Formats: sequence, C-alpha cells, structure tokens
Amino acid sequence: MKVEVICIGDELLIGQTINTNATWIGAEFVKQGVKVEFCTVTKDIKSDIVNAIDLALTRVDVVVITGGLGPTKDDITKHTLTEYFNTELEIDQEVLERVTTFFKKRGRNMLDINIQQAAMPRGCKVLSNDRGTASGMWFDVNNQVVISLPGVPYEMKHILKERGFPLLLEKFGSKALFQRTLHFQGIGESYIADRISDLEEQMLIDNLSLAYLPSVGSVRLRLSGKLNLSHKELMSRYILEMYRRFPTYIFGEEEDTLSEVIGRILLKKNLILGTVESCTGGAVSSEVVRVPGSSKYFQGSIVSYGNDLKINLVGVDKVDLERDGAVSEVVVKQMALNGRRQLGVDYCISTSGITGPSGGSEEKPVGLVWIGIAGPERVTTKSFLFGDFRERNIRMTVLSALNLLRCELLAINTEKK
Amino acid sequence: MKVEVICIGDELLIGQTINTNATWIGAEFVKQGVKVEFCTVTKDIKSDIVNAIDLALTRVDVVVITGGLGPTKDDITKHTLTEYFNTELEIDQEVLERVTTFFKKRGRNMLDINIQQAAMPRGCKVLSNDRGTASGMWFDVNNQVVISLPGVPYEMKHILKERGFPLLLEKFGSKALFQRTLHFQGIGESYIADRISDLEEQMLIDNLSLAYLPSVGSVRLRLSGKLNLSHKELMSRYILEMYRRFPTYIFGEEEDTLSEVIGRILLKKNLILGTVESCTGGAVSSEVVRVPGSSKYFQGSIVSYGNDLKINLVGVDKVDLERDGAVSEVVVKQMALNGRRQLGVDYCISTSGITGPSGGSEEKPVGLVWIGIAGPERVTTKSFLFGDFRERNIRMTVLSALNLLRCELLAINTEKK
Repeated sequence: MKVEVICIGDELLIGQTINTNATWIGAEFVKQGVKVEFCTVTKDIKSDIVNAIDLALTRVDVVVITGGLGPTKDDITKHTLTEYFNTELEIDQEVLERVTTFFKKRGRNMLDINIQQAAMPRGCKVLSNDRGTASGMWFDVNNQVVISLPGVPYEMKHILKERGFPLLLEKFGSKALFQRTLHFQGIGESYIADRISDLEEQMLIDNLSLAYLPSVGSVRLRLSGKLNLSHKELMSRYILEMYRRFPTYIFGEEEDTLSEVIGRILLKKNLILGTVESCTGGAVSSEVVRVPGSSKYFQGSIVSYGNDLKINLVGVDKVDLERDGAVSEVVVKQMALNGRRQLGVDYCISTSGITGPSGGSEEKPVGLVWIGIAGPERVTTKSFLFGDFRERNIRMTVLSALNLLRCELLAINTEKK
Repeated sequence: MKVEVICIGDELLIGQTINTNATWIGAEFVKQGVKVEFCTVTKDIKSDIVNAIDLALTRVDVVVITGGLGPTKDDITKHTLTEYFNTELEIDQEVLERVTTFFKKRGRNMLDINIQQAAMPRGCKVLSNDRGTASGMWFDVNNQVVISLPGVPYEMKHILKERGFPLLLEKFGSKALFQRTLHFQGIGESYIADRISDLEEQMLIDNLSLAYLPSVGSVRLRLSGKLNLSHKELMSRYILEMYRRFPTYIFGEEEDTLSEVIGRILLKKNLILGTVESCTGGAVSSEVVRVPGSSKYFQGSIVSYGNDLKINLVGVDKVDLERDGAVSEVVVKQMALNGRRQLGVDYCISTSGITGPSGGSEEKPVGLVWIGIAGPERVTTKSFLFGDFRERNIRMTVLSALNLLRCELLAINTEKK
C-alpha cells in the first residue's frame, strides 16, 4: 500500500498553522507498516487540488486528503471531489440525522449551510464523523482509493482511525514495519556514525535501515525493519551492541525524554533531586517538573543568577568566587554540595556558565559551562564548551546536566579514558 | 515571485518530526509579500527528490529545499543536486576554513565526513552557515532559482534570513507588504474579535487585512496593508485605538516577547527581579533568563516545589499552609513577600497551582493557579483557572505571571471593574 497525503489550506502555506495532521497521519500509517511516500500541501484552489490528486494517482495506491470540508465559502474540497469523480451531491439522510442531533445537543440553531454538510457525492462511501459535522469520504478508483477528511485534527484523527483504517486494512492487508529508536545525548551524529560504520554496513546486508535524527543537544537513531521475529531479534542485537559502545550517551528509547528517564530512576531508587542553577536560570528545574508526578522525587531549586545570591543564599565562599570566578569548578562544586544540604536532597545538580552573547573572555569564552552533581557519595564536575548561541547553550546545558546525573545515578563512569 | 517548498526527510513522512520548517518559511515569505504556492515533502530517495524538483520548476520561480545536508549516509540532497545540475563536488576553501574553525572552537576532532561537508557543487553559490557545518546552496536555472538549506531549523532559519532573502530580493525585487503585529496576553481571540468588530469593518473599507494568530497563552494580531504612507498612518491609528481598548492585554509589538518587554522596563526603571516558584518549577525564571543581558535586572529564584522548602527555605507560615493549602492566596502572598526580602529584589513573582494531570479536587481543580507579585509598594495576588493539560497550564502561568508583573511595573490597573 503506497500512500500520499494531500493537505489543503492556505493557512498551512502562509505559516499560520503548523501541519501537525501530516505528522500524525504519517505516524499512524507507520504503525500499520506503511511509510507515507509524499505529502503535498496546496491552497484552497480547485485546479491546484485537482492537479495534486492527478499526480498522486500516478504514484500511490491511497490518497488521503485533509482539509476544506467546513461549511464556509473557502471550503471547496467536497465540491471539487464531486466534480473530479463526475458525480452529484445529494442529501444523505443518515448524515443529516447525525448533523441535526449534533446541533440539537448543543442547543444551537441549524443554518442552511449546516444542512448542506449532509449533502454527499453520490457513489462515495461516507466515513461518519462522531465529533463534528463534516463527514469523511471514501472514493474507490479501480484499485486505488481517495479518502477525504476534515482538517480539524480532533475530527480527522477520529475518522481515519475508526472508519478509514479498518477499510484500508480490509482492502490492502497489513505488513506492519518494526521500528526502534535510541536517544543519544552528548555526542554528535557524525561521531556516532564514525563509531558504528561497521554496524551500518552489516545492517545494510541484514536489510535493516538506519536514520539519524538530530536536534539541539540530542540525536535520535532509528532502526527500521520488517515486523518478523528474525528482524526483531537482529535489531535487539544491534541495540545491545549500541548500548555496549555508548553507555554514557544513550539515555532512552522510543518516546522517552531525558527528564522522564531520570524521574523513573529517582523514583525507583527512592531518591530526591534538587538543583542550584546559575546560567540555566531554572531551566534544568523546569525541565524536570514538566514530567507529571515529578513532585514525588523533586524538591526544588535555588537559582543563584547573581553572584550576591551565590554567596548569601547558597553559601559559596566569597574568596573562592572572586579568585576563580563564578564559572569555575570550585564554584559549581560548592553550589552542588551546599545545595544538596540546603534543599535537603539526595542529589543536587549545579550549573554555571557563559551563555552569551556577551560576557566571554579569552580564557573563558562564550559557551563555557561547568556542571556539578553532588550525591550521597561524591561530587562530580565537568566542563563543556558549547557554541555561540544563548538559547542553544542553555538547552545544551540542561540536557548535559540531566545526562550527567543519569550517569551518576547508574554509576556509569563518564571520565574520558 | 512564485515559491515552492520541498522538505526532504523520511522523519517528516513517518510522523517523527513535525514540519515546523515549512510553517516558518511560509510565514517569512508572507513578510515579503509572497505566499508559498505548494509544499512537497519527500523521502531521502534520489528519484523522488529529482521528480519533486522537476515538477516544482514547471510551476514556480523559486524552489526552497530543506533537509538532507548532514554528514551521514542518509543525507543525499547535496549529491542529488550535484548530479541534477550536472556538476561536480569540490572542496570550497572558505567553507573548509569555517568548518575547521567550528570544530576547533569546540575542541573537537574533525572526521573525514566533516571535511566532506566543505565539498560543494561547482557553479553553485554557497550560502554560508554560521551556526553549523552544512552550507546552504543557491543554483541559478535561467530565471529560476533552486535553494538548498539544512533541515536543522536553527541553521536553516539563519541561512535563509541572512543569505537567502537578500539574494532573492535582489533578483526578484520586493512588493513587500507593510505589516504590524500586536501581542496580546490573557484574552482569547474570539473575545478580541468581539470587542473590535467595529474596527474590523472599518479596516475592510480601508483595505487593510487583519489576522488572528493564536498560540498557547497569547494571541498575535497582524494588520497588513500596502507599503505606503497612507496605509502606514492608518495602521498607526488603529493600533493606538487597540492600545486604548486593551491596555492590560497588549504587551508588545512585532518580534517582542513578554520577557524582553519586562526586561526593558526593569532596566529603564533600574529595578531588580526575582521569583519564588512552585507549580512552574523555575519556568518563569528560565523564561526571564532567555533574554541576553538579563543578569542586569534578574537576581535569581527559589523553586520551592516541595512544601518543606516553602516552610524551611521561603519561610511560609506552617499553620497558614496547612490550613489553606499550598495553592492559596495566603501562601503565594507570603512566597512573594518573603522572596522579595530573601532574594534582595525590588519585585518578586510567586506561583502556586495544580498543573495536573492529578492532584485536583472539587474545590481546587486541576488548572487552578495563584500568582503573586510583591513590589516596593504593595503585593498583588490573582487566581486563574486554566485547563486540563500540564504543559499548557505551566506555560499559561508563566505568561500570566509576566504580564501581571508588566501591569504592576507600569501601574496599569488589572482589577476587573
């Protein structure tokens, strides 16, 4: 089953709406073992829509169209498809009943344009919409299919899942793919690639595919293969080997985030976390708190952004601070140790760095960051040299600090050999 | 100038990455008075990429390609374009120097695949990348242009803005629109619309267009017109009227963020800020610190996530806390007042709320948040009832707290009449 998605709507092209529909549809098809081949976004213009469908039908089996099914004048998809398939609109009694009930339930009056939403192209299969008034449509074109869905995500998802997929699987069968994703922190994609070039070659022979998906401060590595036992086992072996090669860098799998992974470890070990932050200004703390239930293992933080607070509130030694500067090993060490005591926590993360754009010097350039982790047994410190951009440096520091904590919690040695 | 965007990458089609690049590019072209005509998403497959470019060149003047310029094997855009334009790769010394400096600055070794990032197709114009190692490319095809950019948003945006647009405007000229944007916080788009329906009618007559661009916790309102004096003057008058109608809600214009606006006011008034946060977990503080130079007006925070810290570190009265609960007016008031003293700041923001998904009760449901602002003259508190979603509730709290501070700083009365 080859699939193309066509998203209709000016708002998608002029930057007013992020096309999350295409993302969601792509992910749903992957669950069925199908990779979407193309996605085309067009304006609400009849000729553009017709051309997009024409092209799609030359190269795929299933065309999924979203958008343009609303009641207002700028919604032209239904009329365009009616013309395209050379048929006519007629009121569908079942749809009319559903639409009428929809309005009745909400105590709203039905306008003529709402009644027109029950007019469906003769010959299409109606994909009924329990969440709104715009029905989906299924058109058979010999062995191909054109599906039209509303653009409202909450309605579109419901119709495709409940009505579309059962019919698609019936028609085309399923050959689901199997995918696994590993998350790396603290190593760039080119360094990963360099250290697994032998594995990559072997994967090719084994018919597995590998993709690198980098974002700021982390890289996802995705393995794909067929949904069968031999591919599953092969992948498990590759993944084990990756863990063996990158114990400090791989922090999770599939949908994991670093803060979730840390939360799980803390919870399991019954440990409490706190932070004392300078350059990150509370970003480590707020990242930890994004996870529901984090109050079970997170106590709080001191954001000692100004040096006064480092001395007066955190108790960093004034002489040390003046001698070595705020961005120094001795200061992050004291921040982590004192924070651990003051916050009454088992582990305390500390950060201090020059995130830029100004404030750098020759010996302490913009991008220099010190991170400390104080735990029950020891305090660890590590320095990093990130780049020139403030937001990126902050994000890199947050992820590096959390990964350093993860390694400490799991007693993984992060020192360079 | 007709434009098509081609985004390359399996991750966009299988639902692993949301295509925010297409959205951003669409919005940037609109600023130049150009609406993107089509957006096509294809896999990292040579023939698909070639077909997409072929098709695009039949219908637009400018093809903007993103993605597939990384150093690893799955990145094939550069090779595909080199073949497509019938040329060859050769090391570009300028690019090589930039890439070498990039690695040197970070104290990292350069691998052969990194050196290969300096190999550029002969005959293309290099669009240099100050934020990464993958350069952009500009190919002239008679009167048409093909631009290739990396997929990493932070690099792509920089190259298109700094290198691409100047060249595009030089080649195609500009029929730029004149646009002004107002930022609202604390009021939904339908309520704004309801209160300016008379203005909207008048704008239609004046040939100005108005767009509502909502995001979590804020709404942008964009006026567009022609780039001439009369439209500019008209717009200024409408904007003045908006300020008159929404003094507490409009916090800025154009590219302003709430934290920048607050930073400017604090700096100008020579005031120092701190925060004491519970439910936001440092998110207010880290939002303030995103702004370069915030150390001039931001001292720091206490994140008293656990109740122990509220009592022991912030000095909230234990009896009050036990009686009224952590999410109460009396507690945020004490957090703000005590924080102001302990952090030694002029203004202190405090937050306490139930962000969910669990922890709600009948009288204190998920979404209930108390915010306090203590200043030199008074302490203000306000409660909010947001929604069901944790991340959204945190974001809403951050923006509401900062806007409340803004109103306090400017002595705008936020109390309901």
